[in-house]
Amino acid sequence: MDLLTARLRAFADERDWQQFHTPKNLAMALAGEVGELLAEFQWLTPEQAAEVMSDPEAGPRVKAEIGDVMVYLTRLADVLDIDLVEAAMTKLDEVAVRYPVDRAKGSAAKARP
Amino acid sequence: MDLLTARLRAFADERDWQQFHTPKNLAMALAGEVGELLAEFQWLTPEQAAEVMSDPEAGPRVKAEIGDVMVYLTRLADVLDIDLVEAAMTKLDEVAVRYPVDRAKGSAAKARP
Amino acid sequence: MDLLTARLRAFADERDWQQFHTPKNLAMALAGEVGELLAEFQWLTPEQAAEVMSDPEAGPRVKAEIGDVMVYLTRLADVLDIDLVEAAMTKLDEVAVRYPVDRAKGSAAKARP
Amino acid sequence: MDLLTARLRAFADERDWQQFHTPKNLAMALAGEVGELLAEFQWLTPEQAAEVMSDPEAGPRVKAEIGDVMVYLTRLADVLDIDLVEAAMTKLDEVAVRYPVDRAKGSAAKARP
Repeated sequence: MDLLTARLRAFADERDWQQFHTPKNLAMALAGEVGELLAEFQWLTPEQAAEVMSDPEAGPRVKAEIGDVMVYLTRLADVLDIDLVEAAMTKLDEVAVRYPVDRAKGSAAKARP
Repeated sequence: MDLLTARLRAFADERDWQQFHTPKNLAMALAGEVGELLAEFQWLTPEQAAEVMSDPEAGPRVKAEIGDVMVYLTRLADVLDIDLVEAAMTKLDEVAVRYPVDRAKGSAAKARP
Repeated sequence: MDLLTARLRAFADERDWQQFHTPKNLAMALAGEVGELLAEFQWLTPEQAAEVMSDPEAGPRVKAEIGDVMVYLTRLADVLDIDLVEAAMTKLDEVAVRYPVDRAKGSAAKARP
Repeated sequence: MDLLTARLRAFADERDWQQFHTPKNLAMALAGEVGELLAEFQWLTPEQAAEVMSDPEAGPRVKAEIGDVMVYLTRLADVLDIDLVEAAMTKLDEVAVRYPVDRAKGSAAKARP
């Protein structure tokens, strides 16, 4: 994680790309990559989607799209000075309180996260 | 990272939510959270967006949305058996070849990732 | 359609909102609304999703989200001076050539649009 | 509008694509196309984005992406039996009440829609 953040920072610095890496632009880029990820799943049945990683063509594409999403999310978090894992853990703490096991069990309406 | 993945897995197991956590559903949930993140930035000028974390109201909201995005991205990667950081590193290796420093320097058209 | 475009324009003019309605901001707002629409469908099975309009709670929410998406898409097209229906028809002409009936029939890989 | 809806319906019927055109899949496809639209704007300054239609390369691409978004939005609305323009008008009625001219004038926080 830290290495990835550092590498992305060096990558942008070397190429003089900090000027483009504003939070607004990076959020758009993140959304664009998530759009490409969705496109991999959009016409699959739930069953096909569950097996997508065994597909010799779609599997590597999905991995590459996930990689793209992680690249932009990590870069955005760095630019905003947010610790990604800590932010996720904090959210999870809140969700655990909001959806206690005994009440949320098996309920789709509450399947978050 | 590993702890986050494990915690999310236990979270879903305890609540019997694996049934909802299909790749297709998780990709949609990820996109939904990215949409909420975009909403935080949409009316801000680039200057306002750059200062968003100093805003006592918007700052914590942005951090929470980033946390939500990371939660679903981590869960999706786990369900697909993809190592998030490794997938991002692999993408970065490719991009480094495609956009060498000397040619990409300062060029918006190439400001990826 | 024309009435909607005109009404949205008047709406922004009266409120002095043209300054916020840049193409970049409107594209982000559009994506944010699509994210909310996705959230309505994310935990539903395909069967539940097909019946969503009969649900007294989810049905009106889905209609409202679709309305939001249409509002921003119409406004964005107006700001860019693009005729929405004409742009869609043009795309459809191209797709008809790319996916002729005899070759595309029943094929998921080609289920576009 | 009606012609577009009818043409899209015939398009799907002829190709036996109704099976893929579930609300869930179409919502994902819509989000995927919006992601491509965002990608056109992500590295542009607000000024560049405002001039994008004059760009001989980016302009037609933006129009094509807008067309794609409209195609899927129209198809999704048809499958859900929602009148797109009417849904947008209804939303606008609500927003007009929520953001009266005298209070919303020039305020970014309220620049919706």
